[in-house]
Amino acid sequence: MAKFDPITKIKPVVRALSAYTLDPIETPIKINQNENPYDLPEPIKREVEERVRSRAWSRYPAFVPSTLLERLAAFSGWRADGILAGNGSNELIQALLMVTVGPGTRVLLVEPTFTLYRLQASALGGDVRSVALDAQLSFDTEAVETAAISGAADVVVLCSPNNPTGCVYGLEALERLLERFDGLVVVDEAYRDFSGQDAARLLPRYRNLVLLRTFSKAMAMGGMRVGYMLADPAVAVEVAKAKLPYNLNIVSMAAAEVAIERHDDLLRPIVESIVLERERLIVEIGTIDGLEPFPSSANFFLVRCSKIPPADLFARLVADGILVRDVSRYPMLADFLRITVGTPEENDSLLRSLRSAMSDRNRERWRSL
Amino acid sequence: MAKFDPITKIKPVVRALSAYTLDPIETPIKINQNENPYDLPEPIKREVEERVRSRAWSRYPAFVPSTLLERLAAFSGWRADGILAGNGSNELIQALLMVTVGPGTRVLLVEPTFTLYRLQASALGGDVRSVALDAQLSFDTEAVETAAISGAADVVVLCSPNNPTGCVYGLEALERLLERFDGLVVVDEAYRDFSGQDAARLLPRYRNLVLLRTFSKAMAMGGMRVGYMLADPAVAVEVAKAKLPYNLNIVSMAAAEVAIERHDDLLRPIVESIVLERERLIVEIGTIDGLEPFPSSANFFLVRCSKIPPADLFARLVADGILVRDVSRYPMLADFLRITVGTPEENDSLLRSLRSAMSDRNRERWRSL
Repeated sequence: MAKFDPITKIKPVVRALSAYTLDPIETPIKINQNENPYDLPEPIKREVEERVRSRAWSRYPAFVPSTLLERLAAFSGWRADGILAGNGSNELIQALLMVTVGPGTRVLLVEPTFTLYRLQASALGGDVRSVALDAQLSFDTEAVETAAISGAADVVVLCSPNNPTGCVYGLEALERLLERFDGLVVVDEAYRDFSGQDAARLLPRYRNLVLLRTFSKAMAMGGMRVGYMLADPAVAVEVAKAKLPYNLNIVSMAAAEVAIERHDDLLRPIVESIVLERERLIVEIGTIDGLEPFPSSANFFLVRCSKIPPADLFARLVADGILVRDVSRYPMLADFLRITVGTPEENDSLLRSLRSAMSDRNRERWRSL
Repeated sequence: MAKFDPITKIKPVVRALSAYTLDPIETPIKINQNENPYDLPEPIKREVEERVRSRAWSRYPAFVPSTLLERLAAFSGWRADGILAGNGSNELIQALLMVTVGPGTRVLLVEPTFTLYRLQASALGGDVRSVALDAQLSFDTEAVETAAISGAADVVVLCSPNNPTGCVYGLEALERLLERFDGLVVVDEAYRDFSGQDAARLLPRYRNLVLLRTFSKAMAMGGMRVGYMLADPAVAVEVAKAKLPYNLNIVSMAAAEVAIERHDDLLRPIVESIVLERERLIVEIGTIDGLEPFPSSANFFLVRCSKIPPADLFARLVADGILVRDVSRYPMLADFLRITVGTPEENDSLLRSLRSAMSDRNRERWRSL
């Protein structure tokens, strides 16, 4: 047997990364991953089954998914040759950073935000810099502009609405940044359907704008892994070089096509009801002593727990069968939990559990357990 | 409108790559991509539909696909903690190279082979070196050993059976390489089911061995994009760091599970019939004047066309409704076409077309067109 240790051939920068693990907690109510609480509507699932049934599973997908790209073009109002589809938008974030970021490339983030940007940009050797959100957990757009321009960033990555805070980078501010800043501005719009804001209308005027979108949230397809990128066609050609061929399987591709076709009658109403529920939850939670919900333009929102440690409230909710996200290890968010909007019934359960947990008598009882 | 040119922010090494494009040719008989000519059997497709139907499409896949990993462990005879599943084996090749290859890393290939290895290793800045196959288009295992050891390679990538030649790297030679060489040996076994050879039995003894496998060929799931890696668990942990979370969608995952469960009764017979057809085709084509088929352990084989340019024969086959792969731009393969084994009926059509094309009278006729 060879005594050679294969780990010596792994790059030191990789060995130094801690492996990402997740300890799964199973609860009846799962509002921790910003998923759509409603399943993809049955008529869409049935139509996907139909289309896939008449297709050989043994054959590779089309090299260029033309049908899907045309659907996405009509859906987004952008040209098909400026669109790439991916195995989740994460794959496209990765491909985009791979073609733009190397040792020394300056990448500007606004934190706290989705952690993947920093991880990937760092792994590629990028010089990652960060602007903080303001005290209200909103974008300080002037600070972002200054940092981008005077810091000579190459790439700015914004998540809008931002995960995990729900704040949006306003279109006027975005346009000002695009106008003044000579670098790429990547806006991850994973949650845009819940915000009413659409940066795609800026694409024709600003070649440095790249938008990332996903079918995992509003489109109720988290299990199918479909995302897409909207960009200048010349940028799309370059990003495509880092994308593996045949990255999207035939079922996910069909599901995305059908979801677009049925968006207006079957999915838009779901999104609207989630937005209404978000507003209801924020109002109701605002009446609970010790909890402060933050405004949000996404399908989740932050709650500040000023009177008890968020980990304690998290555990109490788990005991009640409700899984939320403890974000207290993010910068600025030591006192916060992130809650995804569920169905009205799930939200009622959440409210009951929060009220019970925060009532003084109960709080003493479960904290002494 | 900003005058900034976003392409200036794309890395020069990426801009220098030519975009990979494919001009799709539609023919009734498609034997150009080494796909399984039989569709995934109906009972498997139905069972996949059943399992997926009872599952919310809106919910993310499990963070660790434990059920699939356990199935793969039983199927391959390797431990589940040494297995990673991917969106096609290409994703795992990419992840593996990402964690091992940086500027200056010595990567040894045996060419001609699958082009992705060189592309990816080069894009990562690796120092890619190559040993040629021998004149019979087989592995020169002594030359590989010498190049690996005296050239101090960090990573050796072998494709066995090799695409596009079909030759195998024998297990004894592989064991000798693993024993003597202090580096990683990656064997892409995409076509192993057609060869009868199984390198997995070497895994317990050689921590430097990494195997890549796919469901796209023998398992008849090219459209579903599932691949897997077998490696030392410590290596798997490192490669997993370069894999995006939730890379496998719920349908492809279920399809892989069911395909394994039904492998012995539904898929193994298909593989056996493809192997028989391969041998029949090689014998029959060997009787056609001007064509020399090469032995192969895969579901495809090379044919040397000594009397006419392969591009001409390729075009003639397309005119007959048959799409094969023109590999004449690979090193050493200027006179070759690659043919995937089809169904018996497809193979009969191929033989008729080849005989007709190569008969003198006909050849004159179509070449003058």
